Amino acid sequence: MITAAAGFLAAGTTAGIKPSAKPDMALVYNQGPDFAAAGVFTRNRVVASPVKHSRAALVEGNTGQVKAVIFNSGNANACNGAQGDQDCADVVKHVASLLNVDFYDVAACSTGLIGEPLPVPKLIDGATTLVAGLGDHSTDAAVAIMTTDTVKKEALYEGNGWVLGGMGKGVGMMAPSLATMLVCLTTDAVATPEMLERALKKATATTFDTLDIDGSTSTNDTVIIMSSGASTVQVTQEELDAAVFAVCDSLAAQMQADAEGVTKRVTITVTGTSTDDMARNAARTIGRDQLFKCAMFGSDPNWGRTLAAVGMADADMNPDKISVYFNDQPVCIDSCGAEGAREVDLTGTDIAVHVDLGTGGAGRATVRTTDLSLQYVDFNSAYTT
Amino acid sequence: MITAAAGFLAAGTTAGIKPSAKPDMALVYNQGPDFAAAGVFTRNRVVASPVKHSRAALVEGNTGQVKAVIFNSGNANACNGAQGDQDCADVVKHVASLLNVDFYDVAACSTGLIGEPLPVPKLIDGATTLVAGLGDHSTDAAVAIMTTDTVKKEALYEGNGWVLGGMGKGVGMMAPSLATMLVCLTTDAVATPEMLERALKKATATTFDTLDIDGSTSTNDTVIIMSSGASTVQVTQEELDAAVFAVCDSLAAQMQADAEGVTKRVTITVTGTSTDDMARNAARTIGRDQLFKCAMFGSDPNWGRTLAAVGMADADMNPDKISVYFNDQPVCIDSCGAEGAREVDLTGTDIAVHVDLGTGGAGRATVRTTDLSLQYVDFNSAYTT
Repeated sequence: MITAAAGFLAAGTTAGIKPSAKPDMALVYNQGPDFAAAGVFTRNRVVASPVKHSRAALVEGNTGQVKAVIFNSGNANACNGAQGDQDCADVVKHVASLLNVDFYDVAACSTGLIGEPLPVPKLIDGATTLVAGLGDHSTDAAVAIMTTDTVKKEALYEGNGWVLGGMGKGVGMMAPSLATMLVCLTTDAVATPEMLERALKKATATTFDTLDIDGSTSTNDTVIIMSSGASTVQVTQEELDAAVFAVCDSLAAQMQADAEGVTKRVTITVTGTSTDDMARNAARTIGRDQLFKCAMFGSDPNWGRTLAAVGMADADMNPDKISVYFNDQPVCIDSCGAEGAREVDLTGTDIAVHVDLGTGGAGRATVRTTDLSLQYVDFNSAYTT
Repeated sequence: MITAAAGFLAAGTTAGIKPSAKPDMALVYNQGPDFAAAGVFTRNRVVASPVKHSRAALVEGNTGQVKAVIFNSGNANACNGAQGDQDCADVVKHVASLLNVDFYDVAACSTGLIGEPLPVPKLIDGATTLVAGLGDHSTDAAVAIMTTDTVKKEALYEGNGWVLGGMGKGVGMMAPSLATMLVCLTTDAVATPEMLERALKKATATTFDTLDIDGSTSTNDTVIIMSSGASTVQVTQEELDAAVFAVCDSLAAQMQADAEGVTKRVTITVTGTSTDDMARNAARTIGRDQLFKCAMFGSDPNWGRTLAAVGMADADMNPDKISVYFNDQPVCIDSCGAEGAREVDLTGTDIAVHVDLGTGGAGRATVRTTDLSLQYVDFNSAYTT
């Protein structure tokens, strides 16, 4: 749905980066009249060359402006040193020249294996094809950014006279799998870069940032939003916030459902602690616990592991007053097992876990995670070899 | 080797706590003349009843004194509320009465499933059998504390006229698997409680505390050391430190080798950061990364995952100057792939990972961990059900 907003064109192509010969390059282009943009990036200190470039584009170029984003899958261009930076710049320069825009008007996103040199000639040829083929090709673009994704991920929000569309790939922002999370959002609403940034930070905090598949964090994670203003509708911050949240939330749910080796979608809500941040930390601590995740895979209502995990969280709690609910059924009350706790049915695909930390505090947060399955280990133990 | 030190007796028995009808209770008894003792316990805020009792015994009783430790496997007596505390006290009272010592002279250790009521009558009967059978039965005791362990774990240090022996079960202190770590050390050296505590804290910091199998932390972890002084040899702090470290180090290595589902023993050393604490944090961050652990299982020299993992660590680093070595072969230099990196042979059982964070700092630490195997997930997804 990346071309649903007026003013945006897109294309996807196969440049030959992936050994599988599947589509591996995409371009999203904003024809204007506005070029407002904002981005959020990985918190990892080891960052890929395209992340360095895109960050620079949003601050060193015309601050808060991007006119196009060039994507490739099949190669992360991470941990390639100065050569990686140069390779990224060469591709961006080529795209900028073809589109007749400035170097820093073009952001870049890459995803794939870390530490492989970028095959620049293939990307140059691919970019030429993409620019020549720009059109209403949102599906082609969404497919071309996939790596281990099994389905393309798109979402659309329809406002009153304006729309906001998005595409994404991967399985999480704060803690994605090897499959980096890349997301691009486009809108034809009239909005300033500051409004876009505020809406994006607010939405990612409760969507991608709380999607935690395996505790790992990619070197390449990027979310970029662009507005063309082509609808001439001036939105309020509240309207924009709602739209960005809706599209991010949909993409995050799609990523959770498509996570590598997932057999269970687990939603962990923590309450009864002092602050939302503490609740989020506690929910994340449970969601990252290998034993908890294995129990979910086994449909095993082993609530003791939930308690053991949350006991290590950096959150206020009353260790004698913790309660746990699986699919709304009490399994642990006041830190003791509840009647029938071992018989709770967790065989369904969706599992809701609610943990109350017993302090009476108003802190609350929800984190999406998955189980730790045999398929996950099998898949991730044979990636490069 | 828990009875190698003069003055100590032990016994093991089958009390019927485990459905498997394997041995499940043990007793270690110090005949004196000294009764100095020290302990370290889990950092989890959700703690089992026996941990509460043993902590109290070492401070509320005759400070720094314990005359016996009663162990049971098959039931953790954790998350059982006030009833769990009462059940633990009932067993301890019975043992104290049979041994004619005070209530707080007896410490308690439990390991097994969380949230199951303790079958007190079975433990009372078992304790009676244990006291009647006290003798030179270190092997029986070491076997009786096993849960998912496949082999018993014992170690011995021989000093000049004195010895220090130990037994343990489980797979880690800071971050053990569901199989809680319990360790008991005995020595016939003459040493004060303060000396024992100093030696124990120093040794655990670099042995059990840096053994990290799956990032989970038990509610029951306990390490207790007792000295009888029966050798009449007054040791120095340095001699005691060396002995306690040697025995803890051996037991930690045995636990790593016997960890659930382990197919690889992985040692991660981090250098080139400001402090030892930072190096430990970075090594632990790598050791807990699911993708890194899956790569180890697959004998996959995917060094990109090592860099992506360490980039999230709370340690000083130069993101452009990180180097990684697998089994002493460079796979990444200055954050770029080294020649032949993808061909490094990791098919052996032992893998040594060395990461230099490139700041030139003197911080250094080593963490022991394991791979994340199909066997691990299979085992841990079907524990209670």
